[in-house]
Amino acid sequence: MPPAPVPLPADPDGRRRVVIEAVHPEIDDGRFPISRTAGETVTVECDAFTDGHDKVRVELLHRRKGARTWDVVEMEPLVNDRWSGAFAVGEPGGHQYTVRAWVDHFATWQRGLGKKVEAGQDVEVDLLVGAELLRAAAQRATGRDQAVLEALAERLGGSALMSDRASLALDPTTTIVVERNPDRSLVTEYDRTLNVHVDRERARFSTWYELFPRSWSPDPDRHGTLADVVDQLDYVADMGFDVVYLPPIHPIGHTFRKGPNNAVTAAEGDLGSPWAIGAAEGGHDAIHPDLGTMDDLVALIAAANERGMEIALDLALQCAPDHPWVAEHPQWFIHRPDGSVQYAENPPKKYQDIYPINFESDDWQALWKEILRVVEGWVGVGVRIFRVDNPHTKPFAFWEWLIASVQKQHPDVLFLAEAFTRPKVMKRLAKLGFTQSYTYFAWRNTRHELTEYFTELTRTDQYEYFRPNVWPNTPDILTEHLQHGGRPAFVSRVVLAATLAASYGIYGPAFELCEGHAREPGSEEYLDSEKYQARRWDRSVSWSLHPLIARLNRARREHPALQTNATLHFHGSDNDRLLVYSKTDPSGGDVVLCVVNVDPYTTASGWTQLDMKALGLGDEAFQVHDVIGGGRFMWQGPYNFVQLDPQVLPAHVFVIRHRSRTENDFDYFG
Amino acid sequence: MPPAPVPLPADPDGRRRVVIEAVHPEIDDGRFPISRTAGETVTVECDAFTDGHDKVRVELLHRRKGARTWDVVEMEPLVNDRWSGAFAVGEPGGHQYTVRAWVDHFATWQRGLGKKVEAGQDVEVDLLVGAELLRAAAQRATGRDQAVLEALAERLGGSALMSDRASLALDPTTTIVVERNPDRSLVTEYDRTLNVHVDRERARFSTWYELFPRSWSPDPDRHGTLADVVDQLDYVADMGFDVVYLPPIHPIGHTFRKGPNNAVTAAEGDLGSPWAIGAAEGGHDAIHPDLGTMDDLVALIAAANERGMEIALDLALQCAPDHPWVAEHPQWFIHRPDGSVQYAENPPKKYQDIYPINFESDDWQALWKEILRVVEGWVGVGVRIFRVDNPHTKPFAFWEWLIASVQKQHPDVLFLAEAFTRPKVMKRLAKLGFTQSYTYFAWRNTRHELTEYFTELTRTDQYEYFRPNVWPNTPDILTEHLQHGGRPAFVSRVVLAATLAASYGIYGPAFELCEGHAREPGSEEYLDSEKYQARRWDRSVSWSLHPLIARLNRARREHPALQTNATLHFHGSDNDRLLVYSKTDPSGGDVVLCVVNVDPYTTASGWTQLDMKALGLGDEAFQVHDVIGGGRFMWQGPYNFVQLDPQVLPAHVFVIRHRSRTENDFDYFG
Repeated sequence: MPPAPVPLPADPDGRRRVVIEAVHPEIDDGRFPISRTAGETVTVECDAFTDGHDKVRVELLHRRKGARTWDVVEMEPLVNDRWSGAFAVGEPGGHQYTVRAWVDHFATWQRGLGKKVEAGQDVEVDLLVGAELLRAAAQRATGRDQAVLEALAERLGGSALMSDRASLALDPTTTIVVERNPDRSLVTEYDRTLNVHVDRERARFSTWYELFPRSWSPDPDRHGTLADVVDQLDYVADMGFDVVYLPPIHPIGHTFRKGPNNAVTAAEGDLGSPWAIGAAEGGHDAIHPDLGTMDDLVALIAAANERGMEIALDLALQCAPDHPWVAEHPQWFIHRPDGSVQYAENPPKKYQDIYPINFESDDWQALWKEILRVVEGWVGVGVRIFRVDNPHTKPFAFWEWLIASVQKQHPDVLFLAEAFTRPKVMKRLAKLGFTQSYTYFAWRNTRHELTEYFTELTRTDQYEYFRPNVWPNTPDILTEHLQHGGRPAFVSRVVLAATLAASYGIYGPAFELCEGHAREPGSEEYLDSEKYQARRWDRSVSWSLHPLIARLNRARREHPALQTNATLHFHGSDNDRLLVYSKTDPSGGDVVLCVVNVDPYTTASGWTQLDMKALGLGDEAFQVHDVIGGGRFMWQGPYNFVQLDPQVLPAHVFVIRHRSRTENDFDYFG
Repeated sequence: MPPAPVPLPADPDGRRRVVIEAVHPEIDDGRFPISRTAGETVTVECDAFTDGHDKVRVELLHRRKGARTWDVVEMEPLVNDRWSGAFAVGEPGGHQYTVRAWVDHFATWQRGLGKKVEAGQDVEVDLLVGAELLRAAAQRATGRDQAVLEALAERLGGSALMSDRASLALDPTTTIVVERNPDRSLVTEYDRTLNVHVDRERARFSTWYELFPRSWSPDPDRHGTLADVVDQLDYVADMGFDVVYLPPIHPIGHTFRKGPNNAVTAAEGDLGSPWAIGAAEGGHDAIHPDLGTMDDLVALIAAANERGMEIALDLALQCAPDHPWVAEHPQWFIHRPDGSVQYAENPPKKYQDIYPINFESDDWQALWKEILRVVEGWVGVGVRIFRVDNPHTKPFAFWEWLIASVQKQHPDVLFLAEAFTRPKVMKRLAKLGFTQSYTYFAWRNTRHELTEYFTELTRTDQYEYFRPNVWPNTPDILTEHLQHGGRPAFVSRVVLAATLAASYGIYGPAFELCEGHAREPGSEEYLDSEKYQARRWDRSVSWSLHPLIARLNRARREHPALQTNATLHFHGSDNDRLLVYSKTDPSGGDVVLCVVNVDPYTTASGWTQLDMKALGLGDEAFQVHDVIGGGRFMWQGPYNFVQLDPQVLPAHVFVIRHRSRTENDFDYFG
């Protein structure tokens, strides 16, 4: 018996002649959304073509998720059967887009008519064909369009001079009326609806400061509190930060508590690591009694908000042995044959103060719900940003569900993924819902490394879903570059962070005080790390970067160019130590041009090789004004001399002012 | 009312921790199959990873389409969470593949145990954990494995020396038995099944000769016939071709028939174009009476088969005004308001001898079925290859259905797409089912153009579905390069075609006789083209390329390296006129190295820059034997001198013979 025949497509699918392919952006075949913030633009491209030589019309459809109707954007042809269109997204939540296309018989006919007229051919029959097409359009139209189209059809088939009727058929006003009433009966609809995850602006543009409240007591003999942080919040606000991130504020376990510098056993009075979460006083939903109360947290949130800042909490899903979950939900932990609970390990290293949660537990659904309850509790008291500790050690499916669950009720909640791990794992976490992600920035130091990495972050599909938040240091990361580079290294690194990326953060006061002492050679751990003890910082030292950081963050607030990664552009220079790059405000003329000496040890001088087109500049002279160092220079063309002594200031952050007046007006610039 | 919560995944989906991404090859998210021929290999790669640091196991599953069970191939890790595995496909038809992966708890445990043992730690409890894992494996196992695993579990938990039990746990034989009985309860299956379209070998490796039978009469006053072709088939067979392609052999229309050189009106006795199909004698299912009968075709097929050749027919879906379909199925054509049928146009050009078929007809389903009936009719008399004329002017959906319908019953039928059109249209036709495709080869002449184009054809995803069939000429294409380059151009172009691509063809005898006369300057049309008249070719001229082509095609048959595009590799040279490239037999040591002077006007000399690794060579000297020109040279290292005079022979086609004997044996080589 021969095999059954291949079935014919249902009518009219076999007649849908347009093909739509290669829609961009589209992450993993549409499995994941792209990310945007409110008001940002999505530019969509696709391939659309039909058999033969007929003209094709392509439309971009988009809508707020849940809306019943699509907004329609006419796509424009690029080259090589590629089409482009764009739309702006609205408030946080979901947005959707797709594409449709069809053969435009009227436009095809019009094009042919035009060529025949040009060649002086008889087009009498063609005009009759056109009249039929117009009558069909009239049947699809209503109101005034219908009447206009009927009248046009009548005139095309009428007795006026053939050339006059042809001119009428080719008239742009005719085209407009027909285009308004297209024949979409054989439309091809792209076979999937793509999603945009829309966040509020801070998802794109944010400036973070991490601090350990227990170190912020004015009295060196007393444990710092949330109230102490309130009292000193202006110190942070004056630097221009907008997110204050606190390591875990929960009760700290006693069993196997670590001492200073990660000593295996703690002495009486040692504070332990905030990441060893849970004690008799409570777990992930409690506040460490020494830090204060829920009211203190609410007051801190309010004080931060008054200063244009937000408080970000840490979400570290692991337990100290004293955590209430260990007793109440033993099934969420792995039990060993000797009856003990499995502690964290990275053999042969043991972390006996931490029990990992077993997400393969049979009781996983209750576990997920409990974690959601915890997060919603913090959201309930006003927390809108979570920095998630080691998300890459919990299942991807869990995060996708948790973030979706929280954001469904609270689309303004943001999650920063602290996943310092392999590239594909980091990307997956961003795809599945993390708002921002830590990066490899701390370990990218040379011009080549920085150029390559930020090109990947901003010029590949990763840009569509992965929002980098770059940190020159964290409590876990004191790089060799900072350990050995001294203040010049701290300066160049914070300038790079603040100008290369729309979101960056520092762990302070260690950073602005240029703290560079490592626990031991070869280690990236701080000596006397605040992870295991309180520190008393003298914030009044002369070398503090507080004023510089304040200038940097002011520049970030004042210059929309620095608030996006969409327009990062690298320029050349003839000195490998000089990294030259610019950013442009997508919606206007704001241009910031940076030149950074990435070597903290040596003065670097050389010539820029500017891409003038990317700067929106021509041959005219232009003024560059260094908003960090204060200098002003007249430049012209791609090649301009720069010299940067790291002991003075290793970077220029230039605002470009165009020469729009006469030379004599020079003094009035800026 | 708050929005409904995001539902939890069903058990155990939330516990499936491995992610599978970026499977390759995968064409348009799996919408289209990749193409292979019987016996070829498919190498599959994917990203697979889990949260945390657990070990992952990844398997490639494949099967003949319709089989109930999968064959399983263990995938091996590359770097960066990438995995690789391979399988070979069988007979023509469908083959499928997918991937699955899971967390390997035993291997993870083993790795940790090893590190602890190395660090001299107490592993007593770890061994008890291992014993539990082994007991679980025993429950999944049967027969001898079950007994072995139970015994191993017993011993691990027993009272022997701890170090001995640890050694047992780490023993490779233990690993093997556990790996045979894995815990796939939380397996992640890749969410789609991907397809391989398997063709017979000729889909990959074929050598085509196009001829117009009506020109092959020995009597210049008589119309050539299929029987005449049979009589002269050895002329073609001696050149080593394996496909003889005939332009349409159907009755030719009389209405608006074109005269010689595409004259608008034909004189009495003019033969017309074979592509103006259909007359009173019949349409696409009939044979032109002047060519012979169905029996003559069957005899020609048989004669070709006896010589290791096949007959390919043309499938040109368009009608002369006299075609029976025009009267019997008027609904398949567009009727103009004046009652006439719409002829083919490319305004302002008119092709009144041709009626295009209207695939937007309401009666499209009957049309598709009729075309399938026609194709199956030719298949029924033994035709297994179709060269499809202008497939890009008929709907994509139609071709996908037609080819699938024919190949479902006859998986050995091949379709060559004659789509000289825009790149994405050509690619789409290949994706949807065309076995082979014409290319832009005819217009790629410089070293840069050829390198770039063949790199795209063989080193991008296009390789997976688009099989190029390269033609230096066709009845429609006499390039300027051939018009002006004389015999040297014909030689270099046929050497390039035969050695760059596993499938190539020529339109003869015009090609081997170096016919270079265009209809007019600037045109690629032949003067006195066989499309509109019969030609009498004197195949005995001294400059005929018949012997050269015979040598080339023999080299193609004898060297598997030339029968695939998978291994095409470009090497350098210090002279831009010298194109250097090699091909290697994927399954063995056969290596062919070509050097072609792409400039037909000038002697080119220079030094090769060979990629020795790609040639499988080290520092030793090796012999190159030119199987076209006959020369033998001893070469060594990347840099070897070459001089090619196009008036003598513009190309070397070297077979490489390794120096495996002493210098004195040199004379015995080859």
